[in-house]
Amino acid sequence: MLNASLHGEIDLNAVTFLSPVTEEIKLVEERMRSQADEAHPDLRAALEHLLAAGGKRIRPTLGLLVGNMLGAPLEKLVTLGAAVELLHTATLVHDDLIDGALLRRGMPTLNARWSPPATVLTGDFLFARAAKLAADTDHLPLMKLFSETLATIVNGELTQMFTSRGLINRDNYYKRIYAKTASLFEMTSRAAAMVSPASEETIESMRDFGYQIGVAFQIVDDILDFVGEQSAVGKPLGSDLLNGLVTLPAIYYAEANPNDPDVLSLPNGGWTNNENMTRLVDNIRASDAAKLAMREAENHVEHALACLVSTEASAERDALENLAKYIVDRKV
Amino acid sequence: MLNASLHGEIDLNAVTFLSPVTEEIKLVEERMRSQADEAHPDLRAALEHLLAAGGKRIRPTLGLLVGNMLGAPLEKLVTLGAAVELLHTATLVHDDLIDGALLRRGMPTLNARWSPPATVLTGDFLFARAAKLAADTDHLPLMKLFSETLATIVNGELTQMFTSRGLINRDNYYKRIYAKTASLFEMTSRAAAMVSPASEETIESMRDFGYQIGVAFQIVDDILDFVGEQSAVGKPLGSDLLNGLVTLPAIYYAEANPNDPDVLSLPNGGWTNNENMTRLVDNIRASDAAKLAMREAENHVEHALACLVSTEASAERDALENLAKYIVDRKV
Repeated sequence: MLNASLHGEIDLNAVTFLSPVTEEIKLVEERMRSQADEAHPDLRAALEHLLAAGGKRIRPTLGLLVGNMLGAPLEKLVTLGAAVELLHTATLVHDDLIDGALLRRGMPTLNARWSPPATVLTGDFLFARAAKLAADTDHLPLMKLFSETLATIVNGELTQMFTSRGLINRDNYYKRIYAKTASLFEMTSRAAAMVSPASEETIESMRDFGYQIGVAFQIVDDILDFVGEQSAVGKPLGSDLLNGLVTLPAIYYAEANPNDPDVLSLPNGGWTNNENMTRLVDNIRASDAAKLAMREAENHVEHALACLVSTEASAERDALENLAKYIVDRKV
Repeated sequence: MLNASLHGEIDLNAVTFLSPVTEEIKLVEERMRSQADEAHPDLRAALEHLLAAGGKRIRPTLGLLVGNMLGAPLEKLVTLGAAVELLHTATLVHDDLIDGALLRRGMPTLNARWSPPATVLTGDFLFARAAKLAADTDHLPLMKLFSETLATIVNGELTQMFTSRGLINRDNYYKRIYAKTASLFEMTSRAAAMVSPASEETIESMRDFGYQIGVAFQIVDDILDFVGEQSAVGKPLGSDLLNGLVTLPAIYYAEANPNDPDVLSLPNGGWTNNENMTRLVDNIRASDAAKLAMREAENHVEHALACLVSTEASAERDALENLAKYIVDRKV
């Protein structure tokens, strides 16, 4: 848990992967903050609020570690990191509005304090500034990759909204978590390698590294939704299922219990029945579904670690290994 | 009036400026349409709906005419036109949602048919695709200009929302119409020149041309809000004032009638009183405010025409002149 100042505890794994870039992350935050310098004061205040709400800055950290390892210019990595984190922030602003979420990471969301119109426009402003930052890398392929990733993320959210509720389908699940999370991890790691003096082969390894830890990250998120401490996760246990989203632990449970009436009810809108879903969540928690899902996440981390094998030993490579391991060890 | 098929009449001025690029506009629409090829079917349907709702495609037309006149590659102009029109469409999608508008150009808005979440995400998707198209021009300065313009537009909308209601201020008005309309006209015309083999001086002239017709376009929009035929404008007369937006005709009226109690009430929220505002709208309509505002718009068109003087005679230059004149002659 990184928000030591907020929660009064420190996760040693996190510190290990962060330490090589602690100072550089401050530059990323500074770059993010400066994006509203000429904007309306209320917009500046909104950005401050979003920055203060923090988060682990795991995406910029990934970009900085990969780029530093491969000898990229720091300036481009800071710009890339700010672009990626602002894009991520923009999608969270619109997501929280759409979901009506009032808290994120224990802090009030923007939509909890602002009107929906102001929240929509703030998200749009962050998209605009993220695109500007991506252009500021002066790297056209990176720019294209960036806008394609944004399209992937948004198309994924729409697809989830329209056709994924109640669907028990592993392929659909993997597509969803790619759009939702892995695509941006993948893009960040790949882009950091693209602005480095790295071979095509190394760029591809770094792309795969980002993809694998992104997939693992989302699977662990989905596991924590079932087994995490509610106070740390910050939302009711099993909230995905109550929203009709069948994630990996639920898929494992459904595979082992195909005739469970609650499972059978899912594709027909059974997820709208709170009582049945609470029972299903309890049953999933009592099963080994979370353990099996975690094994699958660990497999992705193993794949990620294999992507690092051909790179030279360095402090950054060690930190990337720790980052990959942290993803499956974290509690929030 | 360009939507001849919808409204059963044809505006000859419009035809004159459109004719040199009629076929090329079809390429722009094709490029726009293809942006959802790999997206969710409902998203494809939404884009079809938005494209069918039409509009004058005045921005891509501007880009095509300027670029053709200056010898730009058609491919880049089509890409630029699609980027600009999609960006414009994205802002309309979010605007209509924010305003709760149910009709635009006589067609149901997206938010009239879709949920707010789906509408927010559709706008986001269009932003993403617009950014991708801008990157597809393979022209970094254009890409930066594009994302800066998006930030200007959104910041302008937020500023309008937070601090412009009831404000009778010409400087504030000009800033608003720059953000809302002129910035995108300016960007389009400038970008079309940037991808042409044109001198810096010509690029600056084209930037100014776009700026001037953009300003004129918005002033005329604001005049039509008072004096247009309600059926053609598609919203109640004086709707801006009823939303607290004091536009140029109202500013002229306020300058001539500083002691009108309805005018005096505006900065103190008097615009929320429907009865008083209806009276104020009637008084503005009965005054010469619209005529004075139109003269100001015509001045901007004169400035625009002066920007063309140093370019060689060509069919495109004639069409740009007609486009500039159309802007003050149009009825919708």
